[in-house]
Amino acid sequence: MARVLDGKTLAKEIKDELKIKIHDWINIGHRAPSLRCIIVGNDPASHTYVKNKIQAASDVGIEAETIKYDETFTEDALIAAIESLNRDKNVDGILVQLPLPGGIDERKVCNTVAPEKDVDGFHITNVGQLSLDMPTIVPATALAVIEMLKRFKIETFGRNAVVVGRSKNVGMPIAMMLHSDGNHDSGLGMDATVTICHRYTPAEQLELHCRNADIIVTATGIPKLIKANMVKPGATIIDVGITRVQSEQGKTKLVGDVDYDEVSKIAGAVTPVPGGVGPMTVAMLMQNTFQAAQKQRGS
Amino acid sequence: MARVLDGKTLAKEIKDELKIKIHDWINIGHRAPSLRCIIVGNDPASHTYVKNKIQAASDVGIEAETIKYDETFTEDALIAAIESLNRDKNVDGILVQLPLPGGIDERKVCNTVAPEKDVDGFHITNVGQLSLDMPTIVPATALAVIEMLKRFKIETFGRNAVVVGRSKNVGMPIAMMLHSDGNHDSGLGMDATVTICHRYTPAEQLELHCRNADIIVTATGIPKLIKANMVKPGATIIDVGITRVQSEQGKTKLVGDVDYDEVSKIAGAVTPVPGGVGPMTVAMLMQNTFQAAQKQRGS
Repeated sequence: MARVLDGKTLAKEIKDELKIKIHDWINIGHRAPSLRCIIVGNDPASHTYVKNKIQAASDVGIEAETIKYDETFTEDALIAAIESLNRDKNVDGILVQLPLPGGIDERKVCNTVAPEKDVDGFHITNVGQLSLDMPTIVPATALAVIEMLKRFKIETFGRNAVVVGRSKNVGMPIAMMLHSDGNHDSGLGMDATVTICHRYTPAEQLELHCRNADIIVTATGIPKLIKANMVKPGATIIDVGITRVQSEQGKTKLVGDVDYDEVSKIAGAVTPVPGGVGPMTVAMLMQNTFQAAQKQRGS
Repeated sequence: MARVLDGKTLAKEIKDELKIKIHDWINIGHRAPSLRCIIVGNDPASHTYVKNKIQAASDVGIEAETIKYDETFTEDALIAAIESLNRDKNVDGILVQLPLPGGIDERKVCNTVAPEKDVDGFHITNVGQLSLDMPTIVPATALAVIEMLKRFKIETFGRNAVVVGRSKNVGMPIAMMLHSDGNHDSGLGMDATVTICHRYTPAEQLELHCRNADIIVTATGIPKLIKANMVKPGATIIDVGITRVQSEQGKTKLVGDVDYDEVSKIAGAVTPVPGGVGPMTVAMLMQNTFQAAQKQRGS
């Protein structure tokens, strides 16, 4: 049976490390790092995500606040609110919970957050720096995947990796770091040979690429997309998918992209859902916030 | 025998089209688009490249000038010179011929060129926009590859493409456009399944990935890297490599990454070297310059 890559426990370890670092940083005279989470509208999942982020911030010693606006809040007003936080010297990190209500241009909003406060790593400047292997703020989910590969000591150098899903916040940055040169300044290059698959990859080609992969990272939101016959014995499977499904008992449960029970008989290592990439994403967001605070305050 | 994808003739066609468009644009009252090419030091190949660019500019009606500095020119002085061109309303496009002499930080220099005048597409903002599938200025060599695939009607949608080489100016942007969504704003997404191979891809894996590819784009500078046994019958091969080698007669000649004579017996289509991607790159640079001029002057 595959080794379970326990993201929940690892996230706890990382948050504990971060808590000590932040404590030390405050002890030498800095105020606590500060984060503002903007949420527009009433999407219950989004409110849950933001609540988890605020809780994690509080756990590690980051001073965090949620700023809630109702669904009728306009793009112009949102941009003005972000610009005010950009100017506020008491704010180190700003995140805008996505998705935003229809009619608001998410790209424009993401690009309004000052790059140095953009703890989600969605600003064009941060994406450009990531693509050039420069030190930058990396989208938390993508960073979580790389951090898991590193901490669980999964060899990537010269190995075949497949990334399933090409979203700009998840699949693309993961593929970027996985294929890049480990000697470049970011320190995040993994030197793998990387295949990017997506909705237009024919099923038989997806199968073929996956079966040749030492590492599969899947981020599609399609339950049971990755089946046992697509996995090379001993491969590592990182499941970024999170889909809410109804169980037979009528309860809601979270599932990933991987047919976990079958795949874990073949794979060498696999992340569970829930308890895999999800909690690691929140931990990486906290790391990004502390990094943003340190950089802005010159240490 | 493979169809020869004649880049020289296609580049001529594109430049002829561009010449008409620029002529029309000047006729409605605009001054000619203007380009400044900065070259530092005495590298003969670089001087040849710049000369070709100036010639192409003159062919299409772009007013172009070379600005030469000697090898001892400092980074600070170069940055000051670029900043002055950034402010100059009579300059639409600026390019700094690479490589720069040792001791000058190329990344810093590329990032000094104003993004809207950055006809090489190397500025962080332009790279970020490219990675997000936004309209932007795309590095000319990468754009040349995509334009050739389009104009020669090579199907990419859902096909397997391999990019060999992960350089930030060539391989990376090509892989980015090849895998991206054709419906996104850039209009450059090609919807292929893309595998990025590089120096750490084991030889037998490179062979395997290439043999499964409908399209191979190679940009390594390693002569005869791509051999006939690595090519699927009927595949399209785009050869971005340019290496100067000594022929048996002692003359210098240019060769690509592809074992052309053997590969052209197997492939469906192949670009020659010279006369393939090279001339197309210069044509795309002219297109970028006209695009920069139009955008800055609001049309």
